[in-house]
Amino acid sequence: MTDHTVGPEIERLIQLLAKLPGLGPRSARRAALHLVKRKDQLLGPLAEAMAVARDCVVECAICGNIDTVSPCTICTDPRRDDAVLVVVEDVADLWALERAKASKGRYHVLGGVLSPLDGIGPDDLSIEQLIERAASPTVKEVILAINATVEGQTTAFYLTDRLASAEVTVTRLAHGVPVGGELDYLDEGTLSAAMRARTQL
Amino acid sequence: MTDHTVGPEIERLIQLLAKLPGLGPRSARRAALHLVKRKDQLLGPLAEAMAVARDCVVECAICGNIDTVSPCTICTDPRRDDAVLVVVEDVADLWALERAKASKGRYHVLGGVLSPLDGIGPDDLSIEQLIERAASPTVKEVILAINATVEGQTTAFYLTDRLASAEVTVTRLAHGVPVGGELDYLDEGTLSAAMRARTQL
Repeated sequence: MTDHTVGPEIERLIQLLAKLPGLGPRSARRAALHLVKRKDQLLGPLAEAMAVARDCVVECAICGNIDTVSPCTICTDPRRDDAVLVVVEDVADLWALERAKASKGRYHVLGGVLSPLDGIGPDDLSIEQLIERAASPTVKEVILAINATVEGQTTAFYLTDRLASAEVTVTRLAHGVPVGGELDYLDEGTLSAAMRARTQL
Repeated sequence: MTDHTVGPEIERLIQLLAKLPGLGPRSARRAALHLVKRKDQLLGPLAEAMAVARDCVVECAICGNIDTVSPCTICTDPRRDDAVLVVVEDVADLWALERAKASKGRYHVLGGVLSPLDGIGPDDLSIEQLIERAASPTVKEVILAINATVEGQTTAFYLTDRLASAEVTVTRLAHGVPVGGELDYLDEGTLSAAMRARTQL
C-alpha cells in the first residue's frame, strides 16, 4: 500500500515493518509512528541492535540453531548430554524447550515438516544430517519433539522409519493435559490420549 | 524477561522489539527469529531504513507533523488552503485524514488531549501555538478533528472557549453512521446523533 502522505523514508520503514509476523499494514504504520516519535530511546537503539544482529548472527552448521557462533553454544557446551538428540521443527521450538529447561541433550533443527501439498519433501529438510548424527555411537536416544500436527506426525513416522537402522531409541513427547489447563477446554484427542497414558498416583 | 538460551545480541533485539505497539514479549521473540532468519531480505534493509529514519525524521516546528523536513511538506504546500486549520490529537490522526483526503487545509497536532487524571493540562499540549495560529487573519475556520472520547470532547469544549476571541468559525467532525457500517452494531449515542443530524434525500 503506497501512502503519499508520509515521506519515502517513513513509507519504506512502514512497508518493512509490515513484513514482521503479527504486524499488518495498519499496525506497522502505528509502530513506525511510535518509533519515529521515540528516536533516541527506541528507533536509534533498535536500528543498532538490528545492525549488530545482521552482522553477528549465524546458523549453527551442526544443529541449525541460530546463534552468534557456529557451532552454537549448545553444540559446544561440554555439560550437554551427547547421548540424547532432540529433534525440533524450528528454532522457535528449540528456544521454547530451552526456556523450559526440558532437556540437557543436543538439538537438531529440521527446518520444517514434510508437507507434500506445499511441495516440502525429505530433501528440503535436514534429514540426511540427522540420520548421520544419529548413526554416531555416542547417540543413544532420539527424541522427536515435533509439533503434534498432521504434518508433524507424518514427519515423526517417516523419521522413525528412517532411524530404524540406527542403534538408537526413538521417542516422542507425551500427549496429555497441559499443566494448569482445564479439561473443559481440551479437545477430545488430547483427553483420550491423556486417559490412555494415565499414571498411577 | 531475560532469556539465557539466546545470545545477548538477539536478546537485546527481542527486548527492543517488545516495546513496539502490538508486540508483546512472545511475539517480539517470534519477530526477532523471523528477522534473523531473513538477514539479507529483511533484517539488513530494516536496520538501514531505521537508521535513515532516525537521521532524517523531524517534527514540524509549525504544525507538529512528523516529516523529513521542518516546516513539513503540508505546511509548505502552496496548494493547501490557509483559511482552514484542522486540529488533531496525534500525528496518526493527521495521517488518517490525509489518507482519506478529507481536507485541503493545514493541520495542527495537539500532542494529546486534556486529561486531569493523567496529569495532562493545557500547558502539556500545543494549545498556545494553536491560539496564535488561529489569530492570523488568513484563518477563517478551525475544524476540531478530535477523537469522540470523553477527554477528546472535553478538550474540544476547552478549545472552543479559548478560540472564542479569535475571528474564526469553530467546527467539529459530524457524528453519524460509519459508511458501510451496520445499524445493528452501533452504539445508542451514535445512532441518536445520526438520527438528530439526519439529512433530506
